[in-house]
Amino acid sequence: MLPVTATLLRHRLRHLCHRIRFYSTAVSPPPPPHSFHLPLNHPTYLIWAANTSLGKTLVSTGIAASFLLQQPSSSAAKILYLKPIQTGYPSDSDSRFVYSKLDSLSLRRRIPLSISNSVLRSSLPAAESMRSNVEASNNGMCDLNFREEKMVTGAPELLCKTLYAWEAAISPHLAAERENATVEDSVVLRMIEKCLTEEIGSEKLDLLCLVETAGGVASPGPSGTLQCDLYRPFRLPGILVGDGRLGGISGTIAAYESLKLRGYDIAAVVFEDHGLVNEVPLTSYLRNKVPVLVLPPIPKDPSDDLIEWFLESDAVFKDLKERMISTYLARLERLNGMAKQAGEVFWWPFTQHKLVHEEAVTVIDSRCGENFSIYKASDNSSLTQQFDACASWWTQGPDPAFQAELAREMGYTAARFGHVMFPENVYEPALKCAELLLEGVGKGWASRVYFSDNGSTAIEIALKMAFRKFCVDHDFCEAIEEEKHIEVKVLALRGSYHGDTLGAMEAQAASPYTGFLQQPWYTGRGLFLDPPTIFLSNGAWNLSLPESFSEIPPEEYGRFTTRDEIFDKRRDTSILATIYSAHVSKHLQEYSGVMQSNHVGALIIEPVIHGAGGMHMVDPLFQRVLVSECRNRKIPVIFDEVFTGFWRLGVETTTELLGCTPDIACFAKLLTAGMVPLAVTLATNAVFESFSGDSKLKALLHGHSYSAHAMGCATAAKAIEWFKDPETNHNITSQRTLKEVCFFVCKVSTRDAQRRRNLHSPSRKRHLSHVWSLHFA
Amino acid sequence: MLPVTATLLRHRLRHLCHRIRFYSTAVSPPPPPHSFHLPLNHPTYLIWAANTSLGKTLVSTGIAASFLLQQPSSSAAKILYLKPIQTGYPSDSDSRFVYSKLDSLSLRRRIPLSISNSVLRSSLPAAESMRSNVEASNNGMCDLNFREEKMVTGAPELLCKTLYAWEAAISPHLAAERENATVEDSVVLRMIEKCLTEEIGSEKLDLLCLVETAGGVASPGPSGTLQCDLYRPFRLPGILVGDGRLGGISGTIAAYESLKLRGYDIAAVVFEDHGLVNEVPLTSYLRNKVPVLVLPPIPKDPSDDLIEWFLESDAVFKDLKERMISTYLARLERLNGMAKQAGEVFWWPFTQHKLVHEEAVTVIDSRCGENFSIYKASDNSSLTQQFDACASWWTQGPDPAFQAELAREMGYTAARFGHVMFPENVYEPALKCAELLLEGVGKGWASRVYFSDNGSTAIEIALKMAFRKFCVDHDFCEAIEEEKHIEVKVLALRGSYHGDTLGAMEAQAASPYTGFLQQPWYTGRGLFLDPPTIFLSNGAWNLSLPESFSEIPPEEYGRFTTRDEIFDKRRDTSILATIYSAHVSKHLQEYSGVMQSNHVGALIIEPVIHGAGGMHMVDPLFQRVLVSECRNRKIPVIFDEVFTGFWRLGVETTTELLGCTPDIACFAKLLTAGMVPLAVTLATNAVFESFSGDSKLKALLHGHSYSAHAMGCATAAKAIEWFKDPETNHNITSQRTLKEVCFFVCKVSTRDAQRRRNLHSPSRKRHLSHVWSLHFA
Repeated sequence: MLPVTATLLRHRLRHLCHRIRFYSTAVSPPPPPHSFHLPLNHPTYLIWAANTSLGKTLVSTGIAASFLLQQPSSSAAKILYLKPIQTGYPSDSDSRFVYSKLDSLSLRRRIPLSISNSVLRSSLPAAESMRSNVEASNNGMCDLNFREEKMVTGAPELLCKTLYAWEAAISPHLAAERENATVEDSVVLRMIEKCLTEEIGSEKLDLLCLVETAGGVASPGPSGTLQCDLYRPFRLPGILVGDGRLGGISGTIAAYESLKLRGYDIAAVVFEDHGLVNEVPLTSYLRNKVPVLVLPPIPKDPSDDLIEWFLESDAVFKDLKERMISTYLARLERLNGMAKQAGEVFWWPFTQHKLVHEEAVTVIDSRCGENFSIYKASDNSSLTQQFDACASWWTQGPDPAFQAELAREMGYTAARFGHVMFPENVYEPALKCAELLLEGVGKGWASRVYFSDNGSTAIEIALKMAFRKFCVDHDFCEAIEEEKHIEVKVLALRGSYHGDTLGAMEAQAASPYTGFLQQPWYTGRGLFLDPPTIFLSNGAWNLSLPESFSEIPPEEYGRFTTRDEIFDKRRDTSILATIYSAHVSKHLQEYSGVMQSNHVGALIIEPVIHGAGGMHMVDPLFQRVLVSECRNRKIPVIFDEVFTGFWRLGVETTTELLGCTPDIACFAKLLTAGMVPLAVTLATNAVFESFSGDSKLKALLHGHSYSAHAMGCATAAKAIEWFKDPETNHNITSQRTLKEVCFFVCKVSTRDAQRRRNLHSPSRKRHLSHVWSLHFA
Repeated sequence: MLPVTATLLRHRLRHLCHRIRFYSTAVSPPPPPHSFHLPLNHPTYLIWAANTSLGKTLVSTGIAASFLLQQPSSSAAKILYLKPIQTGYPSDSDSRFVYSKLDSLSLRRRIPLSISNSVLRSSLPAAESMRSNVEASNNGMCDLNFREEKMVTGAPELLCKTLYAWEAAISPHLAAERENATVEDSVVLRMIEKCLTEEIGSEKLDLLCLVETAGGVASPGPSGTLQCDLYRPFRLPGILVGDGRLGGISGTIAAYESLKLRGYDIAAVVFEDHGLVNEVPLTSYLRNKVPVLVLPPIPKDPSDDLIEWFLESDAVFKDLKERMISTYLARLERLNGMAKQAGEVFWWPFTQHKLVHEEAVTVIDSRCGENFSIYKASDNSSLTQQFDACASWWTQGPDPAFQAELAREMGYTAARFGHVMFPENVYEPALKCAELLLEGVGKGWASRVYFSDNGSTAIEIALKMAFRKFCVDHDFCEAIEEEKHIEVKVLALRGSYHGDTLGAMEAQAASPYTGFLQQPWYTGRGLFLDPPTIFLSNGAWNLSLPESFSEIPPEEYGRFTTRDEIFDKRRDTSILATIYSAHVSKHLQEYSGVMQSNHVGALIIEPVIHGAGGMHMVDPLFQRVLVSECRNRKIPVIFDEVFTGFWRLGVETTTELLGCTPDIACFAKLLTAGMVPLAVTLATNAVFESFSGDSKLKALLHGHSYSAHAMGCATAAKAIEWFKDPETNHNITSQRTLKEVCFFVCKVSTRDAQRRRNLHSPSRKRHLSHVWSLHFA
């Protein structure tokens, strides 16, 4: 049996286990990505539009005017207007437009204003057009540092900034290419973060930040990334400038849906009136939950300075501004209350609530790929990016691009199928998923796919399959009809873990999880053996034999110079293999010898690694011997690949590592890349046939309402293809990966308890980055 | 115990149980909606566009020309071009445009062609503009029956039809309103169906149908429904005419995503070249999976007859046409092979595969609200609409509008959160869902929400909660530490069903589902009582008492003139209540008298109805007595509301019907409206507190990787609000609903076995409509 401490650590260990798949091609870890830290102590909005030329800048200007030029004027008010991407510069400059219009409006309204406009960086052609004497750096961008300003002491303030500018009046990705001046997405994000953060220390109490996008919602940024994807990590709330023209209902709704499909919240839709009452169907579509505001027609005369129009539009902009502020305040209030509220209504699994104080609760605003966006009230109200170092219990998979792709797939599948009942039916996602599983993880042995909801139910189904096969193979069916008493149990390894429902628990050795106060019905229906494990110590690979092998000096068999040796199939003919065989045989004989009615009806193992049981690497030779001894006795073999399946160990399935196949295997967790629960139990044709007969009662009578639900199957099909495709996921197939994986596994499975304790500080959240650097140091 | 036949019928019964929620305000059933039957023996495409004026009609014309005017010409070729919605008529007529251009092109290419153009119905103003002497019917539409044609015997054929026309050149919903001539969505669909079906008998072998939409993808149709929603029931594949202008990348992607968000498949994107190489980012976005085709610039001179442009574009249209045909053939091949393939790779739950032949397998192409779209190869390759009469095991809920809303919510949640690990974390969907549950089904008693994946896991968690509470209340914790042998079991009713995992099964009485060959580990850890049931016979309500009550003449207590009497709490003081109490007391005493170590540690019931166990209505008085007797003995009470929760019985929770509350309750199935698996176990604060302590080991150590997954919680939150909101779901809250529900329940629970057998023909699919009409006759 595992030392109790190890079992206690199970939960924390699950947290710890970082996905290996990513970052595994490099021997040294990649530099940790820049973690953003975004102030949330004032409202910041993205200004989107359904198309080009719908008046984003007019809307920004109107909001700014409404905020700064109110009566009585508040000297504490400040607007930060950012235009991250500007093409057509210098003839077009949205930040200059906002600057000059606010100048005119402040004169007209006789409210003094401090205003400034600056352009931080530009392409060389844009800089030359400005007759600026600058040099381009190696990415083709120049520090422009252009600035114009009119300062009035004590007045409200408008700070306009263009972050990056190109000369050509075309899409940013084309302008960047033509002017040989690109900016990477992360650089744009960091610059925005810097500009927003600089304002935290501002004396101005009433600060509103506007970040105006370029073109339509899905127009490419300078790198070619669509802007709705580019800005996604911050997930700033948005204002959508819609289209009031003919066709504008469609364009506005489509743009709105593209933003929602990327996880954005939209506070309001606003558009120019063209007399087509587009607000009626738009309001109906939005079910009154998002306000739709209509601006008066914009004068088409190019000589019109629009000042009258702004004055005329003032009430609409005032309404818009107030909604932006109230939406912001509501969000902040909610975020501030969530930790406390969670502690009052949730009942977290594996959690002693008495030990979790409010400040220890993590408020997750969103996830983008591998990073959470965490809200911290204590940190002056901010959003911080945090790496999900344990891949959410090895469940999460997608990078940001795949997350966006899966979001589209989820929307599509919900719209196409919603719920479909499975038995005797067929629909594309379920069929596609089953085919991909049989061509992938089941290749060469499995012929049937049984769907359920999670690893635990997949295991219960696997056990039912195995026991039936065992009874058929050993002619027990008749004996049962004659009511002879027969007990079938499993052969399993101590430290293995197969789920929390009773059937799955019965296949595990006793632990604090199975105690009477946790599960009064647990009895432990198995022959549980202590497994030999492999660990890495001081750079050397070592075999650790359990006490039952005490007569064997481990140093004789248990030294490996390379990791490949551990998995080498030539070990099957070693003396150690013979010792293992004899050991297993002896235990099987002793067990059935106790009572004639006792039978081992299934072998169940977690191949290669005991995941939740402590991240121990089991000697693969021992597991191969177990499989072989059970095969010889017609005992069906179950691989529990819930933890290890789908490239977690550098291969699609551990059968590739172990060099032998099961009769039944279970998969879950990464199967759906973290989106929704789904599990499968794969089986050979022989297992399937043991349920065949003329009576329905002979069929496997186990199912759940959402068996093979379309959403799960669709995401699984997408994930299996994505992870396998070298174009979308090139990190995972090389031999090198496998080596790094083994390195990782062994490092984690080292028995240095002290070190493990250091890794698993009770407050895992504070230590994720520590764990991260340690593992790859 | 239930008769075996009833137990055997469990699976079929689940199929049978139609949702009550819908249609329940009317005493008589609504007329069954028109079921469409769509030919699929030739390709039919919807022509969509990202905006107005992008050249949908040019694309339709080009495809038609490429199909009909190929060398050598095929006399068997035929194009059916439908323009369902035309505004601006008669000055604008897309069908006339296609007609006249094909006329010119056939002359130019010297390939004879039979062509015709007709307009079927129009508004009165449009008809008057045509100087047509017609009268409008009461919806303001006229039978126009305008037709022009040029016939050439033996030539390929073009048949153009405008289905509905309005005079004003504005959005259809405005034109329909202004001209006082509306057309309902279902009428438009039926007309399209009729036009498409008429061509089935066509002698032309090579038939291609084009259905051209109006405006952009989400432009409203005449009723105001967005066109992408209006045409959704047919789910025809589409061609998207994109936008090659500045901003067109965004508009094209957004339109594409709106179509995907409604479950459409798009075979190709095509747009006019404006020199901006929009195809590069579009192809990258589409990951090469959907072809992007570029048409030469369209002459802007209004006097240009475009014939040269069509000739110049011929290669692009040929490519487009071939992709349309190959995509169609691939779809058909897949649909034709699915039933066979399903029988070879699936392992359906509850299904004896040997008894399911290929032709019995239902191929489901999609679902729209309550209807499936079923593919039938045998029926000359067609798609047929089929009502989901059993609501997919009572799991499915949304109507088409809510399905679309949920699809958006799924896309949004996947993009915003993907996977988020639950313990010690909080995120909006989980918190919102928990709050709504506590304000709704848990109102007045529950204070904590424990999330899991399905009804079965929710029950296992409930049992663990109840047993702990029982042990704490009876001071057994110390006894256990002293290793005294204690057996805790459940009190449950025969015929109740709580799930298929072992723990849930142990709480059920023995049945064929629990036999050794199904589950060798089943022992049945409970005191199982036979329940008194209520049934309706010849218009009278009757109580049926099990044999153990044989000394009581049922006619004395078991006659009810109204259904309300059955639920009347005044029955609590009746003699029957006393008899029930004595009966329960006696059994509880006898049971614990057998062995001192035997304890009933939990009561578990399905309130009001035994769902999977046969749709029997249990006497609510008996269940109330059970609850009361257990309360008196400090035995925690579990309500299994997996089947009955969320308005299935006309009330949000059966506590409203039963008039008493539990300590613990389980919900699943309709919780997520059928989208994804999710379950919750709600508990009182007292139950929660029994897990409180200084040790983590005292916490409830049960969880699944996807505990409180964001997708499930988000859809549940949306569903709870939607079902509760009288605006979105006005059918479910009236007292009348409750009466109808009871009527339904009792009708189903009648013990007329013969009749039930008739209802449950082995081939449920053929009989769904029969069942439907019978229940509400």
